[in-house]
Amino acid sequence: MAEKTEKVFNSFSLQGIMKTFGAELDSAQNGKAVITCNLNERLTQQNGFFHAGVLTTLVDSACGYAAYTTMPDDADVLTVEFKVNFLKPVILQKVYAVGRVIHTGKTLVVTEGIITDEKQEIVYVKMLATMMTILKK
Amino acid sequence: MAEKTEKVFNSFSLQGIMKTFGAELDSAQNGKAVITCNLNERLTQQNGFFHAGVLTTLVDSACGYAAYTTMPDDADVLTVEFKVNFLKPVILQKVYAVGRVIHTGKTLVVTEGIITDEKQEIVYVKMLATMMTILKK
Amino acid sequence: MAEKTEKVFNSFSLQGIMKTFGAELDSAQNGKAVITCNLNERLTQQNGFFHAGVLTTLVDSACGYAAYTTMPDDADVLTVEFKVNFLKPVILQKVYAVGRVIHTGKTLVVTEGIITDEKQEIVYVKMLATMMTILKK
Amino acid sequence: MAEKTEKVFNSFSLQGIMKTFGAELDSAQNGKAVITCNLNERLTQQNGFFHAGVLTTLVDSACGYAAYTTMPDDADVLTVEFKVNFLKPVILQKVYAVGRVIHTGKTLVVTEGIITDEKQEIVYVKMLATMMTILKK
Repeated sequence: MAEKTEKVFNSFSLQGIMKTFGAELDSAQNGKAVITCNLNERLTQQNGFFHAGVLTTLVDSACGYAAYTTMPDDADVLTVEFKVNFLKPVILQKVYAVGRVIHTGKTLVVTEGIITDEKQEIVYVKMLATMMTILKK
Repeated sequence: MAEKTEKVFNSFSLQGIMKTFGAELDSAQNGKAVITCNLNERLTQQNGFFHAGVLTTLVDSACGYAAYTTMPDDADVLTVEFKVNFLKPVILQKVYAVGRVIHTGKTLVVTEGIITDEKQEIVYVKMLATMMTILKK
Repeated sequence: MAEKTEKVFNSFSLQGIMKTFGAELDSAQNGKAVITCNLNERLTQQNGFFHAGVLTTLVDSACGYAAYTTMPDDADVLTVEFKVNFLKPVILQKVYAVGRVIHTGKTLVVTEGIITDEKQEIVYVKMLATMMTILKK
Repeated sequence: MAEKTEKVFNSFSLQGIMKTFGAELDSAQNGKAVITCNLNERLTQQNGFFHAGVLTTLVDSACGYAAYTTMPDDADVLTVEFKVNFLKPVILQKVYAVGRVIHTGKTLVVTEGIITDEKQEIVYVKMLATMMTILKK
């Protein structure tokens, strides 16, 4: 496992919220990251499906880690902002959050992300996000 | 308590994710809703602070319920999309998510929301969100 | 030329701003539309390049017409909202604004758009936009 | 007139697009800027009203100059991204684009902007925008 990928897995394991969700980091390298999560009653909105905020959290993390894989070794990643569209009801038992880098600048990294199914055929949620490279002193 | 406000509290109590967060609905009426949440280790990112996705979930819900209070009695509310900016590190032990309606259309309701502190003086997170009125058949 | 495509060209010819820009509609069918525009001194920001707002106008129109091609014949299209990221300086003499539908719902159509060069290899600007179907009475 | 305000007026006068629109810079100081523009046939969409892109261009500029007033003297301003909601039809003969800073960071400045009428009572368009401070070498 590449050193950068290892750092992503370490960082992921420190996120209390990912444990709370029962989410797993599937992969993270070369400007792409995938996180999976199974539906359970602790993650629902009022109708028993995934809460929009949970899906957003998963895609935000996938985008953040996708960006992180393109950053210098001693840098940290920060979400500046994102926009997300909810295209159709997410009535899945398991979701895949996929983040990809579309542009790496000196300070900012722009990413896009989706919530999709196991076959990665249908896009349920679409995100466009700006991440920031934080250089440690 | 007004009938509409009661409906919001009922809906809120059905959201598994809000129980998971330990979030509480403070108020919801006349196009405004407030949700509070205390920090705990189940809600953190890798540095021990509130995860951006958790904050987003709270503001999204506050905006959704703010919109819901302006909708017809037999309508349901759906998040179409939102954009959120993270202005400064949220190193608070307790956050207030405040959502307000800025325009009510026939189908769409536009809202803005913030994450703020107890005194509601500082804006840490800012959201602009589009909600949809779903009329039940 | 398909009837729907003809309608797009008619609508485009009625947009005063496209004449002002000297923009041309290249194509519009099956959920995709392309608009081109040459740089001239009437379209610049303070450094002599395309103003971000001009680029946004072009992509918004491309996204709107892309959505329009998927709508019922008697419908009109309206921009509900969009978000746009400016990835790199647009130092091109001619830009291509490309809009594509990513989801068509009953009321809302979600699109993404880009500003690119003639070879359509580099993405300079990225948009995620929500369009609304307005049914004429 | 303060030195910074003078710089904004100079920059504004160099924007070809603002001449093309016939837009005027009303004021720019202390994190706020106002631009006005009269409707004319060169700025319209297919129904004869202000094109959404024109309104966006005006608010983007107002937000950019609002941010610029809070930046160091030797800095330039760049639009990173923005999101804009179109709340209601803009059937005005004259629009006011108002931009305000809501947070100034070391690198990024977050602003919000509106399109409003002369009395500044009704919000027709709402923007949330991220601007970047570019330090000249």
